[in-house]
Amino acid sequence: MSSEPALMSLVSVAKAIAERKFSSREVTQSCLDRIAHWQPRVNAFMAIETEEALAAADAADAALAKGKNLGPLHGVPMAHKDMYYEAGKVVTCGSKIRRDFVATTTSTALQRLKDAGSVRLGSLQMVEFAYGPTGHNVHYGAVRNPWNVDHITGGSSSGSGSAVAARLTFAALGSDTGGSIRMPAHFCGVTGFKTTVGLISRAGAMPLSQSLDTVGPLAQTVEDCALLVGLMAGADPEDPTASTRPVPDYMAATKASLKGLKIGVPTAFYVDDLDPEVARVLDETIATLKKEGAEIVKVELPDQRQLTAACQIVLATEAAAFHKRWMIERPQDYGGQVLMRLQNGLAIPAVTYLEAMRWRGPALAAYLAAVEGTDAVIAPVAPMPAATITESDVGNSLEAEAVIQRITRFTRPINYLGLPSLSMPAGFTKKGLPVGMQLIGRPFDEAGLVRIGAAFQRSTDYHQQIPKLA
Amino acid sequence: MSSEPALMSLVSVAKAIAERKFSSREVTQSCLDRIAHWQPRVNAFMAIETEEALAAADAADAALAKGKNLGPLHGVPMAHKDMYYEAGKVVTCGSKIRRDFVATTTSTALQRLKDAGSVRLGSLQMVEFAYGPTGHNVHYGAVRNPWNVDHITGGSSSGSGSAVAARLTFAALGSDTGGSIRMPAHFCGVTGFKTTVGLISRAGAMPLSQSLDTVGPLAQTVEDCALLVGLMAGADPEDPTASTRPVPDYMAATKASLKGLKIGVPTAFYVDDLDPEVARVLDETIATLKKEGAEIVKVELPDQRQLTAACQIVLATEAAAFHKRWMIERPQDYGGQVLMRLQNGLAIPAVTYLEAMRWRGPALAAYLAAVEGTDAVIAPVAPMPAATITESDVGNSLEAEAVIQRITRFTRPINYLGLPSLSMPAGFTKKGLPVGMQLIGRPFDEAGLVRIGAAFQRSTDYHQQIPKLA
Repeated sequence: MSSEPALMSLVSVAKAIAERKFSSREVTQSCLDRIAHWQPRVNAFMAIETEEALAAADAADAALAKGKNLGPLHGVPMAHKDMYYEAGKVVTCGSKIRRDFVATTTSTALQRLKDAGSVRLGSLQMVEFAYGPTGHNVHYGAVRNPWNVDHITGGSSSGSGSAVAARLTFAALGSDTGGSIRMPAHFCGVTGFKTTVGLISRAGAMPLSQSLDTVGPLAQTVEDCALLVGLMAGADPEDPTASTRPVPDYMAATKASLKGLKIGVPTAFYVDDLDPEVARVLDETIATLKKEGAEIVKVELPDQRQLTAACQIVLATEAAAFHKRWMIERPQDYGGQVLMRLQNGLAIPAVTYLEAMRWRGPALAAYLAAVEGTDAVIAPVAPMPAATITESDVGNSLEAEAVIQRITRFTRPINYLGLPSLSMPAGFTKKGLPVGMQLIGRPFDEAGLVRIGAAFQRSTDYHQQIPKLA
Repeated sequence: MSSEPALMSLVSVAKAIAERKFSSREVTQSCLDRIAHWQPRVNAFMAIETEEALAAADAADAALAKGKNLGPLHGVPMAHKDMYYEAGKVVTCGSKIRRDFVATTTSTALQRLKDAGSVRLGSLQMVEFAYGPTGHNVHYGAVRNPWNVDHITGGSSSGSGSAVAARLTFAALGSDTGGSIRMPAHFCGVTGFKTTVGLISRAGAMPLSQSLDTVGPLAQTVEDCALLVGLMAGADPEDPTASTRPVPDYMAATKASLKGLKIGVPTAFYVDDLDPEVARVLDETIATLKKEGAEIVKVELPDQRQLTAACQIVLATEAAAFHKRWMIERPQDYGGQVLMRLQNGLAIPAVTYLEAMRWRGPALAAYLAAVEGTDAVIAPVAPMPAATITESDVGNSLEAEAVIQRITRFTRPINYLGLPSLSMPAGFTKKGLPVGMQLIGRPFDEAGLVRIGAAFQRSTDYHQQIPKLA
């Protein structure tokens, strides 16, 4: 057991607290100590609630002393992307427009983590209204990558990726509409779980695109993510789009080996135009999976470029519809890039939108036919490791959409198809930047991804690497 | 018992066949005799399948002779709007484009009526692709109103209204997206039942607007409609939007009195700018309902004009999306008015469409709050009785949309809200044209409307009037 409890995994620290090897106060203080050191360097937190967190930790300790354990996260401190409503708390959504917005309800995802006993550390930075893949934010400053603070974290769950990587929180909710969980997981070297559309209720989460938005965690390990997804998944009267199917035991899936599993490697698109270091990590990942007992097979996927375009039509339209009133009343309060992209959404014809929506079913059917017989597909999260903050600061310039397009090339098709995808740390570049790989699964087969991801993490230690404070 | 079985109600004739008081052949021949007389005057049928119908009737009689009764519609001849697919049959959808289209599947609604034993007489005329409220059709000629063949039937279920009114079929499926069942029911003096969105599967029915389309019957009586809706309603694996809730016993609802029921009369909109004869019929209907024991209360509804506009945005967008390829490839094969209205749909921005879609929930909640405590709302189906075919032949002229808007003013809000609405014959003008009234219910409370409508028809005989062949 580490002398610095903040460095433990979520599952380990929860066990340590439950067994009273550490108090929640000790653990919370350990996180707060790291936050004090790291926050000035990485800007991962939106709000740090030191006093409230310690008081909540003390309450958790007092409860435990009386034999009262609230659940699997009892006393575990956490912070989340600042778009999950918590009644009475400011929820900025990374924006100036909602800088002072106080939520009157609590999001279902957050409430379920609270009900499991977690302690609130504060809230995490994010891209303005979750609309951007780099981690820049003109209102609150770019979040920085703990592995090299000159580099981006990826977005839009920028604070979540940065804070988990620097071990400032044991886990953090993100949201993934076009890659916003997997991107920061990849660039920051943590595990991120984009769940199937509809697995986790979106009630009380800021909407970006109602057809594509998904809730999911970023954490150190696949096991940590499995625990959190299991706690959050399932029917919710507040969100009629949330699935009513029974929630599997994801933790049980962490134990199995890869024997008998088939993992597909795409013959094109996801393997094209890769940065050589990303290509190397992909090869190494495939070798590891093979060594662990999985059979590796080639899969010929339908044209994924069309999926990316269709995803963007749906996303831009739905985002513009949600933001229309503010775009009219407060255009000056948006960052330039976000406003430009929202305005582009206003110009999309309804018939084009409906065509993009209607193609989802047939496109999913074609994808599933192509991967028939495999348990998951392995692919890079992005073609490159994290760029520098300066070089990717394209603002609302003419090349902005092309740059964004390039970064999100491998994530958006998955959002369009609604599939689950688990992003895992899978290597480092020579300059020490993390590289992640995503395991893409069938609808609602999160357990299958957990099984593969947990086995991969048993035989690798990329997820255990911790960035050094410069 | 009439000497002309075609004049009986659906429920009565089904009983007479089951009890072998009439053979299916006698009944079918009676319909075919009337069709032979009326068809040249009213143009209600698209296809008349004399030989097949008689053969099917003979088969039904033979089965019955062996003690085999297929169901509640055993041996009852019927024809339906020519947009319900039946495998192996041409389904024109009232269009030139689908003039020779042979269906390879059978629509669920039709299949369920077949499974109940009904015999196919042929198919019925309709407005091209169901997109128009008057009953004109440039490809196949206008359908004519049996009460006065110079007048329109209303649309888009023009043949259904005309054929049921002239007693050429015991009932006919229609479809109602903006008023297409209730309009012909009103203008032709028959009973028409627009069901709640999702009550009856739309699998195998030509789509016009997937968010608004509903399946329902036109027939002589409320009881006839109740029987048919009960047979067609309920879950369908072919249509995931079809409700899975249990189907109530609608026939049982035909027996109850109006004692203890509250019926709302709108204070505005549905009572504004009425033709004086329609206003008189509304007053008489209210008086009858009161006499039958219902309590009449005033209801102040939210602004219904906005609902009409929102309905048109949704309808135009979804229709344009469905027709886009044909609009590009075969524009010359559309009628002028239908093409113009479809093209208008191409110009609607996606954000406007989403706003119209998103407002549905709040608008329904506001409506339900306004009618709280009432069992149904009574309103005219249209502000006027049937216009002449000549005066309403506005084609693709500049005033076309305004004319259409005026006719559908009282029906479209109900489609937008997704509510059930039962249109009943409620009187005649001095010139002998029918006037209908609609009972608007709560979502999935078809049984409540059946109860009121059946009681109304027990104390009135408008639904029993039969037009004379000139």
